Amino acid sequence: MITTVCLNTNTREFAENCIAADISELREEEGNIVWADVSDPTSRDFEELAEEFGFHHLSIEDCQNAHQRPKVEEYPGYYFIVLYEAELVGPTDRLELRELNIFLGKNYLVTVHSRPIRAIATAARLWHEWTDRADQGAGLLSYLLIDAIVDDYLPLLDLISERMDDLEDSIFGEFRSEAIQEIFSIKKKLLYLRRSITPLRDVFNMLLRREQPIFPRETHVYFQDVFDHLIRVADTIDTLRDMLSSTMDAYLSVSGNRMNQVMKRLTSISTILMSVTLIAGIYGMNFVFMPELRWRFGYVFALLSMVVVGLALYVYLKKVKWI
Amino acid sequence: MITTVCLNTNTREFAENCIAADISELREEEGNIVWADVSDPTSRDFEELAEEFGFHHLSIEDCQNAHQRPKVEEYPGYYFIVLYEAELVGPTDRLELRELNIFLGKNYLVTVHSRPIRAIATAARLWHEWTDRADQGAGLLSYLLIDAIVDDYLPLLDLISERMDDLEDSIFGEFRSEAIQEIFSIKKKLLYLRRSITPLRDVFNMLLRREQPIFPRETHVYFQDVFDHLIRVADTIDTLRDMLSSTMDAYLSVSGNRMNQVMKRLTSISTILMSVTLIAGIYGMNFVFMPELRWRFGYVFALLSMVVVGLALYVYLKKVKWI
Amino acid sequence: MITTVCLNTNTREFAENCIAADISELREEEGNIVWADVSDPTSRDFEELAEEFGFHHLSIEDCQNAHQRPKVEEYPGYYFIVLYEAELVGPTDRLELRELNIFLGKNYLVTVHSRPIRAIATAARLWHEWTDRADQGAGLLSYLLIDAIVDDYLPLLDLISERMDDLEDSIFGEFRSEAIQEIFSIKKKLLYLRRSITPLRDVFNMLLRREQPIFPRETHVYFQDVFDHLIRVADTIDTLRDMLSSTMDAYLSVSGNRMNQVMKRLTSISTILMSVTLIAGIYGMNFVFMPELRWRFGYVFALLSMVVVGLALYVYLKKVKWI
Amino acid sequence: MITTVCLNTNTREFAENCIAADISELREEEGNIVWADVSDPTSRDFEELAEEFGFHHLSIEDCQNAHQRPKVEEYPGYYFIVLYEAELVGPTDRLELRELNIFLGKNYLVTVHSRPIRAIATAARLWHEWTDRADQGAGLLSYLLIDAIVDDYLPLLDLISERMDDLEDSIFGEFRSEAIQEIFSIKKKLLYLRRSITPLRDVFNMLLRREQPIFPRETHVYFQDVFDHLIRVADTIDTLRDMLSSTMDAYLSVSGNRMNQVMKRLTSISTILMSVTLIAGIYGMNFVFMPELRWRFGYVFALLSMVVVGLALYVYLKKVKWI
Amino acid sequence: MITTVCLNTNTREFAENCIAADISELREEEGNIVWADVSDPTSRDFEELAEEFGFHHLSIEDCQNAHQRPKVEEYPGYYFIVLYEAELVGPTDRLELRELNIFLGKNYLVTVHSRPIRAIATAARLWHEWTDRADQGAGLLSYLLIDAIVDDYLPLLDLISERMDDLEDSIFGEFRSEAIQEIFSIKKKLLYLRRSITPLRDVFNMLLRREQPIFPRETHVYFQDVFDHLIRVADTIDTLRDMLSSTMDAYLSVSGNRMNQVMKRLTSISTILMSVTLIAGIYGMNFVFMPELRWRFGYVFALLSMVVVGLALYVYLKKVKWI
Repeated sequence: MITTVCLNTNTREFAENCIAADISELREEEGNIVWADVSDPTSRDFEELAEEFGFHHLSIEDCQNAHQRPKVEEYPGYYFIVLYEAELVGPTDRLELRELNIFLGKNYLVTVHSRPIRAIATAARLWHEWTDRADQGAGLLSYLLIDAIVDDYLPLLDLISERMDDLEDSIFGEFRSEAIQEIFSIKKKLLYLRRSITPLRDVFNMLLRREQPIFPRETHVYFQDVFDHLIRVADTIDTLRDMLSSTMDAYLSVSGNRMNQVMKRLTSISTILMSVTLIAGIYGMNFVFMPELRWRFGYVFALLSMVVVGLALYVYLKKVKWI
Repeated sequence: MITTVCLNTNTREFAENCIAADISELREEEGNIVWADVSDPTSRDFEELAEEFGFHHLSIEDCQNAHQRPKVEEYPGYYFIVLYEAELVGPTDRLELRELNIFLGKNYLVTVHSRPIRAIATAARLWHEWTDRADQGAGLLSYLLIDAIVDDYLPLLDLISERMDDLEDSIFGEFRSEAIQEIFSIKKKLLYLRRSITPLRDVFNMLLRREQPIFPRETHVYFQDVFDHLIRVADTIDTLRDMLSSTMDAYLSVSGNRMNQVMKRLTSISTILMSVTLIAGIYGMNFVFMPELRWRFGYVFALLSMVVVGLALYVYLKKVKWI
Repeated sequence: MITTVCLNTNTREFAENCIAADISELREEEGNIVWADVSDPTSRDFEELAEEFGFHHLSIEDCQNAHQRPKVEEYPGYYFIVLYEAELVGPTDRLELRELNIFLGKNYLVTVHSRPIRAIATAARLWHEWTDRADQGAGLLSYLLIDAIVDDYLPLLDLISERMDDLEDSIFGEFRSEAIQEIFSIKKKLLYLRRSITPLRDVFNMLLRREQPIFPRETHVYFQDVFDHLIRVADTIDTLRDMLSSTMDAYLSVSGNRMNQVMKRLTSISTILMSVTLIAGIYGMNFVFMPELRWRFGYVFALLSMVVVGLALYVYLKKVKWI
Repeated sequence: MITTVCLNTNTREFAENCIAADISELREEEGNIVWADVSDPTSRDFEELAEEFGFHHLSIEDCQNAHQRPKVEEYPGYYFIVLYEAELVGPTDRLELRELNIFLGKNYLVTVHSRPIRAIATAARLWHEWTDRADQGAGLLSYLLIDAIVDDYLPLLDLISERMDDLEDSIFGEFRSEAIQEIFSIKKKLLYLRRSITPLRDVFNMLLRREQPIFPRETHVYFQDVFDHLIRVADTIDTLRDMLSSTMDAYLSVSGNRMNQVMKRLTSISTILMSVTLIAGIYGMNFVFMPELRWRFGYVFALLSMVVVGLALYVYLKKVKWI
Repeated sequence: MITTVCLNTNTREFAENCIAADISELREEEGNIVWADVSDPTSRDFEELAEEFGFHHLSIEDCQNAHQRPKVEEYPGYYFIVLYEAELVGPTDRLELRELNIFLGKNYLVTVHSRPIRAIATAARLWHEWTDRADQGAGLLSYLLIDAIVDDYLPLLDLISERMDDLEDSIFGEFRSEAIQEIFSIKKKLLYLRRSITPLRDVFNMLLRREQPIFPRETHVYFQDVFDHLIRVADTIDTLRDMLSSTMDAYLSVSGNRMNQVMKRLTSISTILMSVTLIAGIYGMNFVFMPELRWRFGYVFALLSMVVVGLALYVYLKKVKWI
């Protein structure tokens, strides 16, 4: 389904819900900026786009094949941008990455996506509010959209960071050996998030350092802002990865310490039991001449010495912290 | 064996199965693009190639010595490209890397390989279909061939990714200590795949950033597409490697946990058995005055206390999760 | 609250505690350098700043949203700088990072912060002392401020380094298994410190290597000095991280050795006890013909052989260092 | 000892075994290329070289002090190259690195080495065969020499790779704990090999990318070939290092698994023995009323229950794979 | 204390032990090179230096504050260089790093240090010997000094390398668990050495690659030589670090193996003892009908079966290498 909105930068008026057929007309008019949003596209839609905007067949193919790398590609007359909106969904906090394809031309923006993208509503709202900056054209609109997507990574990373703090508390508190599974799951999430951000950061870095800036000076500052947010997201991901690997080390170390404590304790108990059993063994010997056996309180004496030996060992092992 | 196909870019007609002897003639004709495919080459074939196309003896030697590094080398008048087609073969999913040598000139493409290359059929089919873009010359043909090879890495990596998911499930599910061997085997596969992709990525990066582009503007976009796929494959390999090392960590940690659980359990059982044996030992002592020995239900009492002690310990150890 | 100080570089006289309303007037006068310090800013303050100095709305937004990345951004007419002052506070040495936003223009410096920054007092004091270098303008003032902040990292790192030495001594001395928690806590501190320094180092590196220096030649040398200190802080952090990971390795290794020692000892004691118990077991057998049982000193003989066997084993195990 | 060979590139005739005194004369003649090979040099030889060719005293000193870094240094009028020939010698496959110093001038090549270098014979042979390319001068000769040395690394790495395959098979097959020593020894070999190759690769990379190529266009292609081989050797070393670290991980993991298996088995056997001993303990109690003691087949019954309990436990532990 | 030596490059005569007051005069004379060595400087000395040579107050401050980073800084008219002389001192081979500050001007060299620097004597000696190269000015003198310091790192690294060889031998030979402490101590030494070399290497790299060389062509070759030695030292440190981490791995692995061997042995002995005890337990049962008990050689038979069972188990466990 294609939804089209058009802004005239001179009159600062919006023409909403234009039909696709009008696009050619709208684009021809001086000062018009057209945003065509194609959701859940059919092959018919792709043909129309290719025809209307003259997109290169390679970029159309990239749109059709899902799971592209995040990227910014320069084609004659337009940029083709792929990026991913991230969200944690469901009770198990599954990471969902939703692909968004953007064609950015001089006076138009075409967005293509098969699943609903929350950032589109955000960008549309801001576009209507920022009409006083309308003269900065389609670049500003693409900034609003990309920035909305990139900024959405930060609360998500905060959430992951909180989980990691809980995890860490639980490791140094009441230890659960299942924490390893959670560590593993967060590691994978961070890996996927990193994969969907760092390529963009590198491309923006290159675009912004070019000799001839591709955006007018005023828009340039906005893309520097996006770049800044990209670095911030990427840095946060790297810091979280770093901390997660520390958490993993802590998990392994604490897990080892606890296990060692248990084994020391069990083996210490064995030692006590063996010592006590030895006394029983001694008085189980069948020698004819064993004076204790005939004592009136020999049995009580034996039981007492067992208790004494057992307690003495227990106290000693407690002191050296083996039990 | 040399198979030659020729496309006239003006008439857009193909001349199939030309004999090698015709090559000189075909190449001279304006607008002709010649593709000579040399499979299982003899030293006679190499001599003919060197003579007909004037290839430098160093590139011919590289063709003759197998196991070259993937690379793109610039020789006067032509490019010499080495790359590898990857396939998982046999029941054990052995990784097979098949070397393909490409000589790319202005109006010809020579492919040399000792084992059959699947991508050649794919490229040939597309070449016949894309005749409307025939005017982009030998560059487009080389794009079709290289892209077919690079794209074939992706399903292969998907397969490996699935194996890794299974492996991970099995590690957190019913643990098998043999998983380490599988991890090791995947690690080696990824190492070899990486080795056959990353050098190409680096070379393409350099070629595409040159001041003077070596391909005409229209073909340039195709090679940017190959470069994009190369990055995607390389990134996927790196992500898989990253995840595999996490899987390895998880394996070691879970393996350790399970072992610890077993040892705790066995040592706990030992402790129970020793405690019970101690009771038997006590009533095995030979003291003359041991009242219990003369009780009517002394034996039953002893057995019962053994059961009680054993059960009490079992319940306690179960509660602290040592058993 | 906005505090304003103004220095006239010609007369070298300071006008302290000017009211915000005077800023426009002060800025217009030739040779004046204005420092406006905004602490705990309200949205009203931001509006005034934007109006008076013409700051771009993106940089104002960065000021309003806390937790920016440390950075230096170039806006038309001014630089926007974000950096963090670090301090260890409280009995648990919690790391506090206090954000400071700086707007550096040709003849003014605006500092914005929501928590008190110690370096501001230091910089103000030095500014009053260094009036003989007043002709170097707002650049020198920003140098004094940034340098005061960066230099404050060094004593903090010295403190952490001392803690690590103590930690190391305790690991090789009387081992405490809780050291892992301290290692983890220092690791996190270093991670945060690194995050608040390295981005600045990279930006300064870029700024100082530019073809056209952005500072006059005389001020350049001061920023090179800040850069030098940034590298020193960053290097020290990296060295400490490196050493901490060695400390972690040492912790794990010593922890393992100590545990092994304990287990060897306990298992050795078990072996001794079992050997001695075996002798008791032998003389507990009920054979009719066992000459020892009838010996006068059979019992003493048995006890003695237990002692001898036990001691012999003990001495042997001591010799091979298993006990 | 100085051995001198001279090739006249016009007549393509060789003058073998010239005496050192003739060098000046030979060098003056148009079209002559002189190769002076200095083996086991005396300080007298160095003086002659310095005088005859005018070598800088720093490069002479580098020749005299062994264990230089592999490098290519540019001196006025000549290049000074240090590289190492590698060989595995003796029954223990000790790695021998033999230093070769090369002075490469416009029309001469001086090689200095204190131990015999195999590649010199190879290069000499090829030089005599390739007289049809003689017009490429001393550059081609240095190519032949350097290429012979670099190519010799590949069979050596193949040998190490085979050892590693054997090692890996043995780790997953009949495990030997001594494998760690072999892993360590290969690691050191790879470290030394890497150290003697990667600096050269980096220097060649720099030399070949220069704006003004230092070699004529025709020779350039040969040095690109050496560079390609250097990358191949360096890549192979890195791959082997990567695989060795995997092998190390596998060793540790398999070693851990085997140990765990043994400990589980031994502890399981202990448990069985303890259970059986408990039965013996029970019937060793001295209660007056123990009906079984008086049964005709009480003893056989006791022995049988021991066997039954022991077997039952054995079967159970076998089933859960603890034994 | 300031010691001043002056060399006239025309007459090649030295004026030794000039008093500080003469410096101005000496510097003015054409062709004079002045070396002022300031040891254990007072604040008075610093004032004199600043006045006489016009050093920037930032570089003077760096001199006064110890523990600067090794660096080369360009100030108007001179270079300010900080580097460290390294020595292993005392019976425990403590690493001592002694700071040396160098001011290198067109015709003077000022060295400032608070502890005696051995390299100063070496450089002074060579300066007097190399008078035939005196025309290369203060650059050559600084080369002699820096080179003397850098070259002194190599024997020190050789010493550390020998220690590491001993360590390695001891790990694979008679294992000492204290080796970990030694590994840790060497690790720290290498960390500090690396920190005092790599920054210099990076700065020299940058200085030597500059478009406009800062040294005359003839001196350039000397600084290339220093750079070469810096790389060699840095590479050696990196190699040693790499090997030390291998040594650490080997230590951990061998330590684990030895511990496992001990535990297997002890547990195996337990198993033997338990089996033998079981036999004693059986014949300790009180059944009325136990034929063996009445046999003439029942006791001997029991003892023999104990020996047989014990030996059989011992032989078996020896065979499977558990004992």
